[in-house]
Amino acid sequence: MFPLDRDSGVPLADQIEARLRELMARAQLPPSSRLPSIRQLASQLGVSPNTVVTAYDRLVAAGAIDSRGTAGFFVREARDVPDTDDAALEAGDEQDPVWLAQQAHDQRAGLLLASAGALPGSWLQDAVPASLLARALARSPAGMASRCPPQGLPELRERIAMQMRGQGIPVDAGRLLTTFGGTHAIDLICRAFLQPGDTVLVENPGYFLMFGRLRQAGLRLVPIARRPDGIDLEQLEAACREHRPRLLFLQSVLHNPTGWGSSAANLYRVLTLAHEHGFLIAEDDVQGHFHPGQPTRLAALSGLDRVIYYSSYCKALSPALRTGYVAAEPALLKVLMREKIYSVLSTAALNEYVMLEVLAAGRWRKHLERLQRKLLAARNASTRALRTAGILLHHPGEGGLFLWGAVPHGVDVDLLVKDAYRHQILLVRGATFCADNASDPHIRFNVVFAQQPRLGEYLKQRFAAFEQARSTLARAGHTAKGS
Amino acid sequence: MFPLDRDSGVPLADQIEARLRELMARAQLPPSSRLPSIRQLASQLGVSPNTVVTAYDRLVAAGAIDSRGTAGFFVREARDVPDTDDAALEAGDEQDPVWLAQQAHDQRAGLLLASAGALPGSWLQDAVPASLLARALARSPAGMASRCPPQGLPELRERIAMQMRGQGIPVDAGRLLTTFGGTHAIDLICRAFLQPGDTVLVENPGYFLMFGRLRQAGLRLVPIARRPDGIDLEQLEAACREHRPRLLFLQSVLHNPTGWGSSAANLYRVLTLAHEHGFLIAEDDVQGHFHPGQPTRLAALSGLDRVIYYSSYCKALSPALRTGYVAAEPALLKVLMREKIYSVLSTAALNEYVMLEVLAAGRWRKHLERLQRKLLAARNASTRALRTAGILLHHPGEGGLFLWGAVPHGVDVDLLVKDAYRHQILLVRGATFCADNASDPHIRFNVVFAQQPRLGEYLKQRFAAFEQARSTLARAGHTAKGS
Repeated sequence: MFPLDRDSGVPLADQIEARLRELMARAQLPPSSRLPSIRQLASQLGVSPNTVVTAYDRLVAAGAIDSRGTAGFFVREARDVPDTDDAALEAGDEQDPVWLAQQAHDQRAGLLLASAGALPGSWLQDAVPASLLARALARSPAGMASRCPPQGLPELRERIAMQMRGQGIPVDAGRLLTTFGGTHAIDLICRAFLQPGDTVLVENPGYFLMFGRLRQAGLRLVPIARRPDGIDLEQLEAACREHRPRLLFLQSVLHNPTGWGSSAANLYRVLTLAHEHGFLIAEDDVQGHFHPGQPTRLAALSGLDRVIYYSSYCKALSPALRTGYVAAEPALLKVLMREKIYSVLSTAALNEYVMLEVLAAGRWRKHLERLQRKLLAARNASTRALRTAGILLHHPGEGGLFLWGAVPHGVDVDLLVKDAYRHQILLVRGATFCADNASDPHIRFNVVFAQQPRLGEYLKQRFAAFEQARSTLARAGHTAKGS
Repeated sequence: MFPLDRDSGVPLADQIEARLRELMARAQLPPSSRLPSIRQLASQLGVSPNTVVTAYDRLVAAGAIDSRGTAGFFVREARDVPDTDDAALEAGDEQDPVWLAQQAHDQRAGLLLASAGALPGSWLQDAVPASLLARALARSPAGMASRCPPQGLPELRERIAMQMRGQGIPVDAGRLLTTFGGTHAIDLICRAFLQPGDTVLVENPGYFLMFGRLRQAGLRLVPIARRPDGIDLEQLEAACREHRPRLLFLQSVLHNPTGWGSSAANLYRVLTLAHEHGFLIAEDDVQGHFHPGQPTRLAALSGLDRVIYYSSYCKALSPALRTGYVAAEPALLKVLMREKIYSVLSTAALNEYVMLEVLAAGRWRKHLERLQRKLLAARNASTRALRTAGILLHHPGEGGLFLWGAVPHGVDVDLLVKDAYRHQILLVRGATFCADNASDPHIRFNVVFAQQPRLGEYLKQRFAAFEQARSTLARAGHTAKGS
């Protein structure tokens, strides 16, 4: 039928598969024709029947041939299925939250994700070695047939509770629920505690996908300004009196997009207001793992009284696992669990056993310490580079992934962001993070990517061109007046 | 400090960890006290410093000691965190959908899950070997640092599309979106296409968690009777005229809980009605993989016109992965993707690379064939056993996991289910599957568990006792009349 090359080093099954594909492509094996039987082909080629079985199996799996039981294997009919592009959003949707979520996955070579919301893959690649996966599965009672109870794997919740107690948060496994990451936690909180028409307070700026999610649920968003030491207390108090809010979303530690923290005094006052005005607080701590110190958290101050706390391992350990967690008082947790069941039935046992193994082996802490050191160095380098380029960093924040930098006075940030994208640099403008969509002179920079010289050079050049245009304009105005 | 046993075969790090735990438990190392330095302890015990590091790391990870950088390691303060039970529902919530979802994970030895919604773990344990995980990761570009684009891994969607084309459904990767299983697909469809107040048609009986989800979203459920050859067309047509439905949920193949199929003629008529009355159809195919033949599906008949199709690999391959998929026309898929981003941001790359490897290696088809053979044998055995016990199986259905059996006339199914639970047998009564919560004489049996003699014996005994009570009563009535 065809010759095999036994000296090529290419496995024989691979060669058989490739030859058969060629014959089909050239219609020497036309659609609906029968392939030689396994035994026939094996003896013709002088290989073991198993080798032919492997090749046929792969062709069946690839949809190239059909197995019709005892009748044998047949070349599959070509089917006319028009190819659709992936469901990417159109141009013009740029800076739309969903468009931005997709951009984070853009693999296009050369696109500098200077505003990325995550660490580059290379920083996390060694965090969970492949050998750990097999070990995790071996410890599970039924391997890949294992199921997670809806609340999440009890042993994993034990470990998470220990880690949280280390952060000063008094919690046990019974007060924890696992999720598919931080966004899932936000979704569950919305479903469990908020009705269309309810007023929700959010920090401004804040996480844009959350704003989209809240608006879509028919909630009234009231933005409260974020300051370098916490949420603006005067605005918060005024909003409490005016709007009778149901819930406040707050990121106390390494706030996204600013990198700012919250003073203990600020958080204490927030809790007092929550008690006075009867609202819940959802404390977002998905950036908290990047903080090298022991910052104060609401959940540590109040002991989960009025506070629903959530975080995840997606950002600091493995985005491939999508494992997060929510902590709340038992009565609230029960409502959250019902919503988890309605949204996804349960989380994935594979992911939770892997996460358990990471925490139990003591890998997590070492990994974090290394990460925090590298982040600090990147942060220092980016701060220098951005300042040299002309970006204003009035409050560089406490650490973590982000720097919240303003463009020089007079520069149109919308035009800059569009121009940068044409130059293969993805910048996300401040307005995207603003719940009121107000114009804003800031850009969120990712400290790992923002240290790249290409960004600094680009910004410096643009700002210089802007200055030149302005002074030309000023001179022209002067001349015009003088004439 | 303490002796080590070098002949015990117990690794030295394990011994050191255990000894230190004992010292802490007996308060010989009280809270806040400093542990010997790594170097000190290593030289004292005559072991390598690495061995001590391993033991200390585990104690840190377990929350027993703290590392305070150069200051050394310290016994952690005991904290009083009251232990909470897991968020299980109270007794009295029995047969509530969420309670039932939890019961599926009840590991209590001896509880016979005769109505379980899934295969036992032992049937799936070999489907995805541990070695496959490492191979899957090796093929991913960034291992555990990989991310899925929001629509799902393109290579996996290619494979799923091939498999679906093999089922006659004209689809390509661009028309597919991956999900965290079938329940997640239902959730996304609700969010994308339904508003509070909309009318949704559902098959009756049907999937109880879906009913709960739909009601909670403020939707009006209109139940349409399920018949052995499909949905009741007269009721469907009447409901279309009366209620102007927005969407119909329909499980065409191996309907849960009945195991019934749908004739091609029935499905054709359903599509005609959808066109006439302008509603969408969500076709649930999560049981379809268990069907050994080539049953007709709506998505094959209509080519995704008006049909949103979803299925998953949770039931037939691996619940630990929680990987499912939705197929829809591009315009609808875009809306579904936005909802996926708002609900979980993205699915997990680990799970999707593993699933890709399973499909690419040709494992899936072989596994399914084996499973289908075993299911058929179990189905035959359960049918015999249940009939012998007195259960009525008027329409045993086409195959798959479930048998929909009625108790003998006059038996109170609610009392039976409660009594069975006291006898360590979990039965789910028909009313739970009924969207109108009507009383119903059926029980859903899982064919794998229902063949266990304990179930047949229990039922036979109960039905015999019932018969005896009835005839005693009849005689008493007779005597009473006669006296």
